[in-house]
Amino acid sequence: MQLPLRIDPAAGMGLQAQVTDQIRQLILDGRLTPGARMPATRQLALDLGVSRNTVMGAFERLAAEGLIEAREPTGTFVAGRIVAEGPALLPLPEATTSVAAERRRRRRLKLRVEGHQVVAPHGPALPFDFWIGRPDARLFPMRHWQALLMRKLRGGARHLCDYGDPQGELALRQAIAAHVGATRGIAAAAQNILVTNGIQEGLNLLAWLLIAPGIEVVVENPCYRGAAQVFRGHGARLRPVAVDHDGLDCAALPTSAALAYVTPSHQYPLGATLSIERRQALLGWAAQAGAYVVEDDYDCDFFYDGTPLPALKSLDRHGHVIYLGTFSKSLGAGLRIGYMVLPTELREPARRAKALLNNCQPWLEQAALAAFITEGGYAEHLRRLRQSYAARRDHLCAGISHGLPGWHCGGGGSGMHLVAHLPPQGPDAEAVEKLARTQGVGVYSIARGNALLWNAGPDHPLRRVLLLGYAALSQTEISEALLRLRQAIGAH
Amino acid sequence: MQLPLRIDPAAGMGLQAQVTDQIRQLILDGRLTPGARMPATRQLALDLGVSRNTVMGAFERLAAEGLIEAREPTGTFVAGRIVAEGPALLPLPEATTSVAAERRRRRRLKLRVEGHQVVAPHGPALPFDFWIGRPDARLFPMRHWQALLMRKLRGGARHLCDYGDPQGELALRQAIAAHVGATRGIAAAAQNILVTNGIQEGLNLLAWLLIAPGIEVVVENPCYRGAAQVFRGHGARLRPVAVDHDGLDCAALPTSAALAYVTPSHQYPLGATLSIERRQALLGWAAQAGAYVVEDDYDCDFFYDGTPLPALKSLDRHGHVIYLGTFSKSLGAGLRIGYMVLPTELREPARRAKALLNNCQPWLEQAALAAFITEGGYAEHLRRLRQSYAARRDHLCAGISHGLPGWHCGGGGSGMHLVAHLPPQGPDAEAVEKLARTQGVGVYSIARGNALLWNAGPDHPLRRVLLLGYAALSQTEISEALLRLRQAIGAH
Repeated sequence: MQLPLRIDPAAGMGLQAQVTDQIRQLILDGRLTPGARMPATRQLALDLGVSRNTVMGAFERLAAEGLIEAREPTGTFVAGRIVAEGPALLPLPEATTSVAAERRRRRRLKLRVEGHQVVAPHGPALPFDFWIGRPDARLFPMRHWQALLMRKLRGGARHLCDYGDPQGELALRQAIAAHVGATRGIAAAAQNILVTNGIQEGLNLLAWLLIAPGIEVVVENPCYRGAAQVFRGHGARLRPVAVDHDGLDCAALPTSAALAYVTPSHQYPLGATLSIERRQALLGWAAQAGAYVVEDDYDCDFFYDGTPLPALKSLDRHGHVIYLGTFSKSLGAGLRIGYMVLPTELREPARRAKALLNNCQPWLEQAALAAFITEGGYAEHLRRLRQSYAARRDHLCAGISHGLPGWHCGGGGSGMHLVAHLPPQGPDAEAVEKLARTQGVGVYSIARGNALLWNAGPDHPLRRVLLLGYAALSQTEISEALLRLRQAIGAH
Repeated sequence: MQLPLRIDPAAGMGLQAQVTDQIRQLILDGRLTPGARMPATRQLALDLGVSRNTVMGAFERLAAEGLIEAREPTGTFVAGRIVAEGPALLPLPEATTSVAAERRRRRRLKLRVEGHQVVAPHGPALPFDFWIGRPDARLFPMRHWQALLMRKLRGGARHLCDYGDPQGELALRQAIAAHVGATRGIAAAAQNILVTNGIQEGLNLLAWLLIAPGIEVVVENPCYRGAAQVFRGHGARLRPVAVDHDGLDCAALPTSAALAYVTPSHQYPLGATLSIERRQALLGWAAQAGAYVVEDDYDCDFFYDGTPLPALKSLDRHGHVIYLGTFSKSLGAGLRIGYMVLPTELREPARRAKALLNNCQPWLEQAALAAFITEGGYAEHLRRLRQSYAARRDHLCAGISHGLPGWHCGGGGSGMHLVAHLPPQGPDAEAVEKLARTQGVGVYSIARGNALLWNAGPDHPLRRVLLLGYAALSQTEISEALLRLRQAIGAH
């Protein structure tokens, strides 16, 4: 396979950067499709008249960006959907493999192996884990929750036995409508809300409804990995747009895109809040481009400094914004309850899609949560969490400032994690992550923190950024973790 | 739009049948795609040189088969995926409609409106409802279930707060593996099981993994609607194959298909059990065609006459069969727990797909169900249900034989519903359904019973078949319901 690259040794840009940029563009444009095999580095170097090290450097960078992946011993492939054709990715007994390969060869059945990372970190549990977005199980309102479940079960056998409304239980949708009205400034009717199996299902449902191969989707750079993957899995062309301390650079939005996926309250992973001027610009872009904006408000319940900005959706006059919320951060991901606030024209299509995908969500958790919200227990729980988490954030920030010279914190105005910028000298984020792990401490570079980062060479400042989720650790645990972190770095 | 039809007045077949058959074939072949607008009846009649009544008759039949649908006042369209372009299907305020239409026009965003019927029957609840596949809420093991939930919640906060394994809780997968081994003869490892949000999600996940537009999928004729729709929604070409008293006609399987969706234990909706000879033939076809067989074993827990046949999957030597099971019929659909037993090569792709679609299922129900099965409560519950349901089936059968002259029952050797064949004279199934409804009794024609039927003209014998789910009604209720049914028909 010959790639259509043009390398110009006289250009102001390094050879490796040229190779990297042009291959990246081929992938983002969909001209190199997921699963396509990359040429051998030796051959490509010969074709381009550059050294093999140059090509290998480019491949390494593209792999770090999640765009390509090596599969030993088969070769290197464009990441994403894979038409598996051998045992490389799937270790199978020989007989089964040949049956399966034969089956696919003859029938051209597609077999997708989306590169979706499971959300929780891998490997053995760490005693001091700053994993992002995990609530503290010790603060779960267990007695209250048990009482609610028991109350709902009495006389609830009919609901356990029957299919529920694909949109979600009406009582829960009414409770959510009231909640997002009061806390996020969103005027939503219960009939425009759909209960989902977490935000991830909301994203998948939207992609099923709206994305056909080739449609362009704006994502933030860096971006929540689960969103980018689900859009790419439906064939979207991703258009990463840079993020700075005011959030997404809305002046750089391509008018050719049909959808933008954004995290305005607390940019994932960098933690910026989208400024009010940029919110206006984003809505103006949506109106002009005729696009939808998907607002992922994953950890909006936690804000610490003054009054939070209302949701982007609250400014939406013309039904451009689709709002996604979740109870995974405030109660727990094991409940699997998220929701969407939909523009009116998407209400019925989304309801039908949910019925087609998996009928509906389980009844019991929905019923208990509706009562928890309506009776005020949820607001009280959020108040308590906010207090604890604010204290933990302050403690972590202070600990870093005093104990880790040259580090400074950002992104902590809201949410459940901080962004620590490392000093320009010394080990980078990935190296610190590895050192910390030897001491039982989990801290996360952007790539390991469920985020994708495009166009980031080895000297990119975001390679010196660590993500620290503080919500699940007590102040005592945070102190101990920082002590170990100092030792880990010092030992280095 | 001019349709490529050839009508031959000299052929032995009626004109209306020729129009119907040829349009049906265009749709099944994918040459007329879901959402395509059908020509006006007047124009088509002119083009073909037939009367407008002939064309209208053909359209009515195709609509009854679920292949096309009228959307007042816009026109008639091929059913399934719809690129909505106006207010016909979605009643919207004028302003929003124009914004949305403009958005779609400019961006070519797809907007799917899958024609998936919500599973439960519509309209006000009927006092005597023979809805299919609904368990009796009065027999739900509520005290035991409450105790299990409380036990699992003690010390379970961590599981409520964290993401679970996308494949499902290990304890539940182990319990399911033991259960399908003991009751269905399937030698499954826990690692080949994936817990889903009901069978519907299993079907969707398989379609996501395996189906690309144009791939041919065998379905039974008649077929469970939710399955046909999900495959069609992913672009499959459906190949309906006839069913008789021995189940699917395996001699008629097209070798061009890559997947067959079947219900061997208790054909949905007609209730036949696939004979052992045909099971062998089906597996032979799969080996020869290099195809997968999806075995939907939705109500296998209930068998009344002798020993049940083991699952088709138990005969599967080469990993051709994907087995789908559910707890919706034995416990309740409101729990939303189903599962798949996967061939080894699909294990990892399915796990990744589940993570991408919605991460995982809620924890609590999985944990409680694992204990319920492992500690023997589930087997005991099934024994009790089987006893009750057998008595109800016998009572219903006897009541029909004695009280409704000319009716006879079939399909009741297992499962939760009977098939009643109406006498050749008198009202057909649809008419009886309507009459019964006036007396508060729900009985269901094939089309209204969540099934699709192809190639069935007005005189087709299956238009004189009613489906009666008996599991949720006590014997006293069944007697009263039959009394009312007699009155309804007598009054007619």
